[in-house]
Amino acid sequence: MAKKRIGVVLAGCGVFDGAEIHEATLTLYFLDRAGVDVVMMAPDQGQREVINHLTGEPMDEQRNVLVESARIARGKVVDIATVRPEELDALILPGGFGMAKNLSDLALAGPDATVNGDLIVLLKSMHQSGKPIGAICISPAVVSKVFADRGITVTIGTDEGTAGAIRSMGNQHENTNAEQIIVDEKNRIVSTAAYMCAANIGEAGAGIEKLVKKIMEMV
Amino acid sequence: MAKKRIGVVLAGCGVFDGAEIHEATLTLYFLDRAGVDVVMMAPDQGQREVINHLTGEPMDEQRNVLVESARIARGKVVDIATVRPEELDALILPGGFGMAKNLSDLALAGPDATVNGDLIVLLKSMHQSGKPIGAICISPAVVSKVFADRGITVTIGTDEGTAGAIRSMGNQHENTNAEQIIVDEKNRIVSTAAYMCAANIGEAGAGIEKLVKKIMEMV
Repeated sequence: MAKKRIGVVLAGCGVFDGAEIHEATLTLYFLDRAGVDVVMMAPDQGQREVINHLTGEPMDEQRNVLVESARIARGKVVDIATVRPEELDALILPGGFGMAKNLSDLALAGPDATVNGDLIVLLKSMHQSGKPIGAICISPAVVSKVFADRGITVTIGTDEGTAGAIRSMGNQHENTNAEQIIVDEKNRIVSTAAYMCAANIGEAGAGIEKLVKKIMEMV
Repeated sequence: MAKKRIGVVLAGCGVFDGAEIHEATLTLYFLDRAGVDVVMMAPDQGQREVINHLTGEPMDEQRNVLVESARIARGKVVDIATVRPEELDALILPGGFGMAKNLSDLALAGPDATVNGDLIVLLKSMHQSGKPIGAICISPAVVSKVFADRGITVTIGTDEGTAGAIRSMGNQHENTNAEQIIVDEKNRIVSTAAYMCAANIGEAGAGIEKLVKKIMEMV
């Protein structure tokens, strides 16, 4: 049997302006242990901003999402625009503000956010083919926007603002802690809150490990 | 009993010019699961270079090691110059070229390398107090330089050039694969090769998990 191929969407490299590094790395770790091939992808575009992660302040710099994502990917990342959905068995979106600033403008526009067109195509194609989608941290809100008014059920933990945004998109939100997952069996969407509420990397990892395990049961 | 406090040295953010992200993250993950407090530290200095991780080519940019390390640390990283050895029960050095370019010049000078002075103080103090040191990937060669002619035993996998450099520093090298560790019980130094020879993140993680477990037995 051919190895399963799982796509992982990266949004840069760093929680405040890119992909959350621990979430992305632990996703890759648990996927590798499950014996799959991973296709890492990111958009070839400028970051919305560069944040000094020591101070939290914006820096006067320009960085590219694909180039910075390559730090997490050790170089093995492709332009999301080149990924064909039929080559993937599932798609997982780790979190980090890059998901809400680079792959969407959720951090600015909330329920009125627009989402990267290539990501929309991949997500909708996965869904139409019955292939599972995994969404971590803030990513369930991005997935919710793509499937607005489809009645999907996800979790981003307990943040009432984000949960309310998901409901206003015509979807359901379930409160969880970071070690739990929510499985929308009908829509084949698995979500976990990770650093939306995790107090430490162990809690984030527990939820991500369960998410990856569930995705592997579904592919 | 007070929680153990383990220091983790970061050298930037990215395998080619900083800390290897998977190695650093998995170190933090296994330490957190062991229930310890972690003190992340990095030098407040410019990176020797900035590498485009997609192409492998140098970029015309300046980045700071402490500021970039904060991406892995989610902001919780301190200047290594401010860390007092007596506050730590052990010290772990993940790898990445930053260890050989920013915290030493091993990548340029080989056996004649010089090592960051604050790191030397911490390593020698750990050693004198009988506190364990963990070294991952290329870091065992940096530790070897600090303990030149002390007859320590470490592994960096099977790379003959680096192994020869370690021997020329008056120390011993043992060949391993990425899933093994070498324990120098006398000198209380534990090492694992990780991405010096790992084919994937799972292999790197297996060695790092064993290293952290052994360090926790020794503290």
